[in-house]
Amino acid sequence: MIKGEQIIGFGYSARGKETFYSFDPAEQRNTEYLFHKATPEEINLAADRAAAAFQVYRKMDGAEKAVFLSALAEAIANSGEELIKVCCRETGLPPARIEGERMRTVNQIKMFATLLREGSWVNARIDTGDPDRTPLPKPDIRSLHIPLGPVVVFGASNFPLAFSVAGGDTISAFAAGCTVVVKAHPAHPATSAIVGELIQTAAKSTGMPDGIFSLLFDDGIESGIQLVKHPLIKAVGFTGSFKAGKALFDIAAGRPEPIPVYAEMGSTNPVFILPGAARERAAEIAAAYAASVTVGVGQFCTNPGLMIHQKQEDDLLQLLRSAFERTSGGVMLTPRILNSYNAGVQHHLATGGVEQLAVSATISGNSANQAVPVLMNTSSQVLKNNPALTEEVFGPTGIVVSASSKNEMLNIARDLAGHITATVHGTVEELIEYKELLDLLEQKAGRVVINGFPTGVEVGNAMVHGGPWPSTTDSKTTSVGTAAIYRFTRPVCYQNLPQQLLPPALQDKNTLNIHRLINGNWSTGDIE
Amino acid sequence: MIKGEQIIGFGYSARGKETFYSFDPAEQRNTEYLFHKATPEEINLAADRAAAAFQVYRKMDGAEKAVFLSALAEAIANSGEELIKVCCRETGLPPARIEGERMRTVNQIKMFATLLREGSWVNARIDTGDPDRTPLPKPDIRSLHIPLGPVVVFGASNFPLAFSVAGGDTISAFAAGCTVVVKAHPAHPATSAIVGELIQTAAKSTGMPDGIFSLLFDDGIESGIQLVKHPLIKAVGFTGSFKAGKALFDIAAGRPEPIPVYAEMGSTNPVFILPGAARERAAEIAAAYAASVTVGVGQFCTNPGLMIHQKQEDDLLQLLRSAFERTSGGVMLTPRILNSYNAGVQHHLATGGVEQLAVSATISGNSANQAVPVLMNTSSQVLKNNPALTEEVFGPTGIVVSASSKNEMLNIARDLAGHITATVHGTVEELIEYKELLDLLEQKAGRVVINGFPTGVEVGNAMVHGGPWPSTTDSKTTSVGTAAIYRFTRPVCYQNLPQQLLPPALQDKNTLNIHRLINGNWSTGDIE
Repeated sequence: MIKGEQIIGFGYSARGKETFYSFDPAEQRNTEYLFHKATPEEINLAADRAAAAFQVYRKMDGAEKAVFLSALAEAIANSGEELIKVCCRETGLPPARIEGERMRTVNQIKMFATLLREGSWVNARIDTGDPDRTPLPKPDIRSLHIPLGPVVVFGASNFPLAFSVAGGDTISAFAAGCTVVVKAHPAHPATSAIVGELIQTAAKSTGMPDGIFSLLFDDGIESGIQLVKHPLIKAVGFTGSFKAGKALFDIAAGRPEPIPVYAEMGSTNPVFILPGAARERAAEIAAAYAASVTVGVGQFCTNPGLMIHQKQEDDLLQLLRSAFERTSGGVMLTPRILNSYNAGVQHHLATGGVEQLAVSATISGNSANQAVPVLMNTSSQVLKNNPALTEEVFGPTGIVVSASSKNEMLNIARDLAGHITATVHGTVEELIEYKELLDLLEQKAGRVVINGFPTGVEVGNAMVHGGPWPSTTDSKTTSVGTAAIYRFTRPVCYQNLPQQLLPPALQDKNTLNIHRLINGNWSTGDIE
Repeated sequence: MIKGEQIIGFGYSARGKETFYSFDPAEQRNTEYLFHKATPEEINLAADRAAAAFQVYRKMDGAEKAVFLSALAEAIANSGEELIKVCCRETGLPPARIEGERMRTVNQIKMFATLLREGSWVNARIDTGDPDRTPLPKPDIRSLHIPLGPVVVFGASNFPLAFSVAGGDTISAFAAGCTVVVKAHPAHPATSAIVGELIQTAAKSTGMPDGIFSLLFDDGIESGIQLVKHPLIKAVGFTGSFKAGKALFDIAAGRPEPIPVYAEMGSTNPVFILPGAARERAAEIAAAYAASVTVGVGQFCTNPGLMIHQKQEDDLLQLLRSAFERTSGGVMLTPRILNSYNAGVQHHLATGGVEQLAVSATISGNSANQAVPVLMNTSSQVLKNNPALTEEVFGPTGIVVSASSKNEMLNIARDLAGHITATVHGTVEELIEYKELLDLLEQKAGRVVINGFPTGVEVGNAMVHGGPWPSTTDSKTTSVGTAAIYRFTRPVCYQNLPQQLLPPALQDKNTLNIHRLINGNWSTGDIE
């Protein structure tokens, strides 16, 4: 049921007099779902509850947390048609995309449940003591990761499920042992309310503490700022624009007690096409690039908005042009995002030396708020003189930079700021020849993709979805995959703590059967 | 040889016209060692060289880096009497302490060499691909940790060897694959110069790139600020005061590209004495506490400046008084540190409800710049009303807080900010009874010590030397032990990169024989 009220722990609250409607971008009008904006008191209450629940939840073992996550995964998997319908109305995205995203969200939750059941993620390290060591006895030191505390997660506009209320940040925080307050994205509050209720129900039915989860609504920025400043909040997860992410980072750094902000911000995800690849598979590359730039109306943080190739006798530019003309536009998530998209494209096209290479010929149906895919072309020199061209324009657009030599290509790579991904297409021989390019790109990105495209982020143990500034505020973590759990933990060690008081992961007998670093050796054994 | 010049890569530079002398605190006068202050041009040159060398050094394998570190360890171990003499003169610390610290520094370097030779620290994770997966092929994703880039390390006043030029931050950065610019602490520039030359020589003789290491001198703050702001610098290591650490943190967060600052700042390292322990071993606890507070003239970040006990029939207070009266004062590192110490003690004693419990009866010899150990006593109520009493006074002083109940003790723990360590003395039975206290303390500290004292930090794999704000700027890392390497790394992943272009740690054949997470299972095997 879509109540339009704040979810605070196991209760609801609607103290705020200010309200806002959820919006249907394709119809260009409000839906019938009305939401109360969270009041400062409700925000404080959610934080207080999260802090109180944290003291209970942090001590629950992996198996108990996994029961909660598994129940949630099942609930979302079985959430039926209403979620899809509401989500499509609020986002303009098609049902197949939302169904796929739901399945991805469910699989992410299951992955973390599996991680918790296995248990080795706590990174147990044991250096056993030696009371007979001289001149001083050697203490027994044992460390593992513990959760940071209550976390604030901001729902993302572009992934209403997988990076929102029950998305990667929320679930990795739950897996870490943190309690979570989610600020719903105002572009899909009804979707958020449905998922929030599923979390509330799953938490209640599996014996989690009241306050483990809250969900707050606001179509302005005040609630988010208050949450990030709240002294009981210990970390922040965010996916969105550079401007908003940077603002949260600055607020968090300026707190009396600064806290980490994991903000995934803009990225143009440069794609380098080496000459041999262009010769061998220009048509395939052109078609796949056009698809990758326009899928989901280009509203992915991994959208490859920048392609760099070398001018030569191949017909890559011509093939890109015709592939792009065959793409379709579509409804963008919000009118504001469409306005930014159009302004960004206009800005780029107004830059001297940037040419329009292709425009999509079709837009689909007669929905409102549609973006038209645009492909541009420019030279290395123009790019060098206009670094703003490497900044993200969120939507279905790309710039193809025609370099005149290997060296120009390397210089472009050298000048890049941080990106979520960087891609190279090349034959094996020329990848070896361009080793220097790969060396540069791994310093600029979280993920280096070979002969593929960056959209479609695999969820697993090895994924790194993050990258150097300004693509994220913290290149040392990932927001996708099991390693995301470490955003919300820190290590602690115990010196000479008696066995029965140690967490099970650190006791001599390895009852959890996890991998532990014992006196420098990885092992699943007991300590004799 | 102590040249008094900047070490920039494999060269020296003395362009600056401003100079300063190294100072002997016990004699209260300058030594004969004169140092040029680094100029802005020299700072830029050191950063440029560090960035150029980084491109070479980052690609060297673990074995090559280990050769460099081993040569350095040997050079420091064999550095003879001059280092000890100069260091004692500059710090006022006794030779035995400096000899011990040298051995600790050598062992730290050897530990990182061992870590590199073993190789599993890179945290290799491999999710193999599946081209036949539907609807989309599963890509092959492989990740590992890579170095961040050139790092700035600030030498610490209180550990002229183990936390300075070749100290934990420098060595863990080298181990990670980073190049390092050290800003020497002005309290021991000649010591720094000797060690710097050993690093320069070891780097040269083992084929490391010119620029892997530079050492800059300045008795002011300008050089440090310029370094932290320098766009080529990617991380900062610091040990010192809250004020200085916070200032560096703010500068780094305000850069166009913010970078991580690992600042270890103040901590009073609270020690809780439970009633049973006090009954059983009051004399032993009192003697060990007095020793822990006054060792090294109290100039340790793990100095236990706060003790909390429960008023009862034991004679702990009386025993603490007499143990403290038997301690000795000593020469502090600098006149400024002594002034701060005296001011801090006076501030505490001027707080209503704080009493002086004991003063050391002896000071040693007729050296200048000596601190007198002072022990104070107060109540829980006074502590609650004066949170400044929980802030560090760097030096040989402590406050004993007499609580009147278990509940008061728990409330004190609840109100604590972050500390490097927290300690509990108790019988096993009462540790179980006080489980809530342990639960609180592990949320406030990086290390929880049972029935011991926090001074003396074991160097190993499980050590966590760090803690929540304000004890450090980043509770998620440690500055001691092998895990310190992760301060200076970030993960990167490769998607579908051909075998021969993968780093050896990620190739199918596990030639390095390291532990890897392959499709969710830890293994040392190959991928078939």
